[in-house]
Amino acid sequence: MIRFNNDYSRGAHPKILAALAQTNNESYGGYGIDPWCEKGADAIKKYLDCPEAAVHFLVGGTQVNYTAISAALRPYQSVISADSGHINVHETGAVEHCGHKIQALPAHDGKITSEQIEEEARLYRDSDIQEHITQPKLVYLSFPTEYGTLYSLRELADISRVCREYGLYLFIDGARLGYGLGAAENDVTMKDLARLTDLFYCGGTKCGALFGEALVITNLTLNVNFRSYIKQNGAMLAKGWLLGLQFYALFADGLYFEITKKATELAQQIRRAFAQKGIPPYIESCTNQQFVVLENGQMEQLAEKYVFEFEKKIDATHSCVRFCTNWGTTQEEVDELITDIGKL
Amino acid sequence: MIRFNNDYSRGAHPKILAALAQTNNESYGGYGIDPWCEKGADAIKKYLDCPEAAVHFLVGGTQVNYTAISAALRPYQSVISADSGHINVHETGAVEHCGHKIQALPAHDGKITSEQIEEEARLYRDSDIQEHITQPKLVYLSFPTEYGTLYSLRELADISRVCREYGLYLFIDGARLGYGLGAAENDVTMKDLARLTDLFYCGGTKCGALFGEALVITNLTLNVNFRSYIKQNGAMLAKGWLLGLQFYALFADGLYFEITKKATELAQQIRRAFAQKGIPPYIESCTNQQFVVLENGQMEQLAEKYVFEFEKKIDATHSCVRFCTNWGTTQEEVDELITDIGKL
Amino acid sequence: MIRFNNDYSRGAHPKILAALAQTNNESYGGYGIDPWCEKGADAIKKYLDCPEAAVHFLVGGTQVNYTAISAALRPYQSVISADSGHINVHETGAVEHCGHKIQALPAHDGKITSEQIEEEARLYRDSDIQEHITQPKLVYLSFPTEYGTLYSLRELADISRVCREYGLYLFIDGARLGYGLGAAENDVTMKDLARLTDLFYCGGTKCGALFGEALVITNLTLNVNFRSYIKQNGAMLAKGWLLGLQFYALFADGLYFEITKKATELAQQIRRAFAQKGIPPYIESCTNQQFVVLENGQMEQLAEKYVFEFEKKIDATHSCVRFCTNWGTTQEEVDELITDIGKL
Amino acid sequence: MIRFNNDYSRGAHPKILAALAQTNNESYGGYGIDPWCEKGADAIKKYLDCPEAAVHFLVGGTQVNYTAISAALRPYQSVISADSGHINVHETGAVEHCGHKIQALPAHDGKITSEQIEEEARLYRDSDIQEHITQPKLVYLSFPTEYGTLYSLRELADISRVCREYGLYLFIDGARLGYGLGAAENDVTMKDLARLTDLFYCGGTKCGALFGEALVITNLTLNVNFRSYIKQNGAMLAKGWLLGLQFYALFADGLYFEITKKATELAQQIRRAFAQKGIPPYIESCTNQQFVVLENGQMEQLAEKYVFEFEKKIDATHSCVRFCTNWGTTQEEVDELITDIGKL
Repeated sequence: MIRFNNDYSRGAHPKILAALAQTNNESYGGYGIDPWCEKGADAIKKYLDCPEAAVHFLVGGTQVNYTAISAALRPYQSVISADSGHINVHETGAVEHCGHKIQALPAHDGKITSEQIEEEARLYRDSDIQEHITQPKLVYLSFPTEYGTLYSLRELADISRVCREYGLYLFIDGARLGYGLGAAENDVTMKDLARLTDLFYCGGTKCGALFGEALVITNLTLNVNFRSYIKQNGAMLAKGWLLGLQFYALFADGLYFEITKKATELAQQIRRAFAQKGIPPYIESCTNQQFVVLENGQMEQLAEKYVFEFEKKIDATHSCVRFCTNWGTTQEEVDELITDIGKL
Repeated sequence: MIRFNNDYSRGAHPKILAALAQTNNESYGGYGIDPWCEKGADAIKKYLDCPEAAVHFLVGGTQVNYTAISAALRPYQSVISADSGHINVHETGAVEHCGHKIQALPAHDGKITSEQIEEEARLYRDSDIQEHITQPKLVYLSFPTEYGTLYSLRELADISRVCREYGLYLFIDGARLGYGLGAAENDVTMKDLARLTDLFYCGGTKCGALFGEALVITNLTLNVNFRSYIKQNGAMLAKGWLLGLQFYALFADGLYFEITKKATELAQQIRRAFAQKGIPPYIESCTNQQFVVLENGQMEQLAEKYVFEFEKKIDATHSCVRFCTNWGTTQEEVDELITDIGKL
Repeated sequence: MIRFNNDYSRGAHPKILAALAQTNNESYGGYGIDPWCEKGADAIKKYLDCPEAAVHFLVGGTQVNYTAISAALRPYQSVISADSGHINVHETGAVEHCGHKIQALPAHDGKITSEQIEEEARLYRDSDIQEHITQPKLVYLSFPTEYGTLYSLRELADISRVCREYGLYLFIDGARLGYGLGAAENDVTMKDLARLTDLFYCGGTKCGALFGEALVITNLTLNVNFRSYIKQNGAMLAKGWLLGLQFYALFADGLYFEITKKATELAQQIRRAFAQKGIPPYIESCTNQQFVVLENGQMEQLAEKYVFEFEKKIDATHSCVRFCTNWGTTQEEVDELITDIGKL
Repeated sequence: MIRFNNDYSRGAHPKILAALAQTNNESYGGYGIDPWCEKGADAIKKYLDCPEAAVHFLVGGTQVNYTAISAALRPYQSVISADSGHINVHETGAVEHCGHKIQALPAHDGKITSEQIEEEARLYRDSDIQEHITQPKLVYLSFPTEYGTLYSLRELADISRVCREYGLYLFIDGARLGYGLGAAENDVTMKDLARLTDLFYCGGTKCGALFGEALVITNLTLNVNFRSYIKQNGAMLAKGWLLGLQFYALFADGLYFEITKKATELAQQIRRAFAQKGIPPYIESCTNQQFVVLENGQMEQLAEKYVFEFEKKIDATHSCVRFCTNWGTTQEEVDELITDIGKL
């Protein structure tokens, strides 16, 4: 079976494992106070235009999301998110468990607009019963979104402008950041993210690392005692250098961008193969996740050789499924899939 | 100015004040362990067919809602509610502050259906990633709803059946219970509520008491150490007898039903007056809240003599407003309003 | 039976009931936005030297405590309290339920010292693993304490100085404030409290009101959107004027001070009666609560006519019990008790 | 510099790294549903007498502690812990952040007794104001304790008996489990832990793994939807097999016990070296952590070549410090230290 079901089904890029092996006889200070975390942070900051930014390494995405939100908000404040946002649908209510309402806005292609955000912000600002409602204070976006789509630079700039006008923080979940930055249609850079958001993260788990996410905080008011939040939320790895080391390996020479770009290109080959076969996309995605609508027979045929993710039934005879490439996907695996798509 | 803006703008029915005055020289045990709380509970339970039910007296509605939900749910469980439900829109995120997600379903006339609830419950039951999503475990309804509408007995029975089939608790917010029970169109009794729900409450604050809500728990598994939840959530009145006494005064001889029924009838007079004038309802309501769509000029004209609640703009020249009667509203006040509606 | 068991066993001072009766035919705006809340706040502020202070009326003491703490602290911050502090022992973990650790310091006569507080604050300040421990950020004191003792002006000033030096908020629980201010030994005024703390409250429930507590916030950074916290924590009374009205009745002409002072004097008579009989105090208290150590036989004898509160066993033949006067206690009741103490 | 400062300063045992490398080209299902997690669980369960036990793999100790506690307790329930317990002093209030009070009991040598626990349980059981206090419901012990001491089998059996008598859960934090099991003085087995507790965990992070903790739940009522708690609390590793694989490597052939036993033996050599030099232990520890009281001069001298952990000042000229061995500590490192202790 060849796995196209997700982008966290393989260990780590060989350079990561090599780095772990090379340092295994060394000993380091704990909890992220070590030279590798410094080097990892510096390697990431080379891609930003923000020398004062803080970089924290956490273990997983759900952790980053609720830890950042817990640090940013007061109890009566809420998060604006697409209804399809990961925090709203796949984190077991972790944000609410931390005490905060998510104001879920209807998404189009996994995205929300600056107009939608402004309307929510204005409703609160203009309300004469503010104490009875939650105050939207942070906007959560995913880049790429859960459907593999991207915000354009213009869209992000508009959202950022609204956020600043209304005093909202802008937080971008970059669990799959590499796959988005490397897309042919993408016009957003890490510098843009640093400039337009208050905090965002570069996903490692899905982008070549064994595990780990690098949270970049550019709005330093959000960084006050941030390590206390990390620890309290169970997100501080005792052997923190394991995270710094991996991000150094990924960012020091651009490996992160290279391997995810290749995965995105392979996904586009799959996209074209489906299109040529007349199999419609559920959503047009320019990144590593491809959502298509298969007939049940097609689904069964492909399931004999490939693992892919069932999303939902469309009707009695059709379903939406996801094919996902990752940093470790090979051209051979994709070629085989394309051949088999052709045979459907 | 005559107030029709809400149903909590006046003190208490004179019998309540008289009861407070008569007992003011007595002294009692604290925290709801006193003869009046027993009498108040018994007086309510006469209307139920459920001798083993537990009755707790709390101070306000928001308290009851989040205390009951906090007691009923485990951290990964969520509440199903109409998107217009009070807990979802006007309690400053109190339920989320207690750690629980609200799964807000689109309401029609302030109501949700057994089919909508079943779909949510089924999605969880059939999910193969249950650990990534919250488990809907309690259904919150309002009776009457925030728009003054009522669930029919059939609708409640259907919802109750779905809840039991899927292991969901059914909780009814009866902040305005009296105004609903007394409506001409209503076919639901307190016995029905006790039979069909796991817990519900009889509102006092809006229905003749100075303050206070009577929570009836019929599913006794939810009653285990419930007083601990009341205390922890700041909802245990030190002088608990003040609550028991008021509910005794309201329920011992049916005063509760009588005064709210009258208010509902007065509201129907207002409803008819608007209809005769050709002023459309925003929603057809058979209870004490009337939502109508006024032209701006009409709104200004009425605002000279009456206080009513602005809800939202409909368009450049129309707004939705609420006129609300209460247990203290007089026929004279309503007659005056009707006359003035006639003059619009 | 004559009740000396607590100070919340009677309704309200007759002037409070009269005020409620007089205004019962009026109607008011909801949620504390009404003329009586303004008047009540102004009446209290006459006793302060702090015209910009904010005054909020809440229903009960537990509510005030956790709402204030919830508003003041970030998730990783903790509260310093005497181990005998009400929040630490009798509020069902409400502060922890809001997410905050209580650092309980060993109390002497119900009190903690500026030295103890400074030591805690210094431990955090000097720690090189700050992210692993909670940051003490608020000091909770009770005045009078749970044992009826008082902080002297000097003690409060010292604590206030330490708090300001280390950036800690100082919060005083004044559930029994009147009984302390009126004590012969007391040298603290409301002006002092306003000057030395960041926020404190004047208890109504135990001091003549039917219910209600008046929270005074002098550090206005803590007042930002404070009404959102009140609502979220279920502490916003719909008919808020009921609270403002009561506090106006209590403070407009000094009734609050007069009735509590008398109760404190009556308690001192009881204190002296026990002393003359050779019955030792458990703790020397100059306010309305008297803790004494009775022999079992004495306890049984008094229990025939009086309700008092059992605190704990001292040894096989002795127990600590509490006799408590309140604003409604009469000279006759006390005389009777004194006579019976004499007969022991 | 040779590090004796803690037991998480090195990567992983070479067999762990080898296992990671060998499986790096494979792909697996996510979130702990994979063959390695099954194998890892089975390997651990070989050492228990409890075939139905559930085993969950989480990333770190703080996570395990608060996730387990969050799953076990209702909001009004509290945890009994030694005041020196890790959850009480070094987890940034994570347990309170989850809403639960810790009832911290004074520890002796890092341990609490069955008598202390019984007294707390009895106080609650016999209280007539139960709703005003938290209900102790779970006992948290560390084995070894934070001071390197061990509970004897007799002590654990007594505590377990009290817990069962009073309906308390018993939870053991085994972050350093191996170092305790391998101590010469130890008479407790993993079978005993499974039999006497409701849940406990085998620490991996400090005992040879790169990271990871294996939680064993033997009381299956605590296992209901436990994976939901793991996910909600950010403790579910996307690439879960990385954890299962490591625990399989550690437990399949007893490597876990072997490497930690050796570290404990090395620590005892250090212990004896200090004793021979007349340097007093702060606490007598039979496991891998050694706490000794050094003169300032001795401390400076050793600090030239060794990293060890400063604990606290004892007096002007003495401090308590910790020397810690781990699975990777070599005989040569210890010999060198012993030589240098001899030279002090």
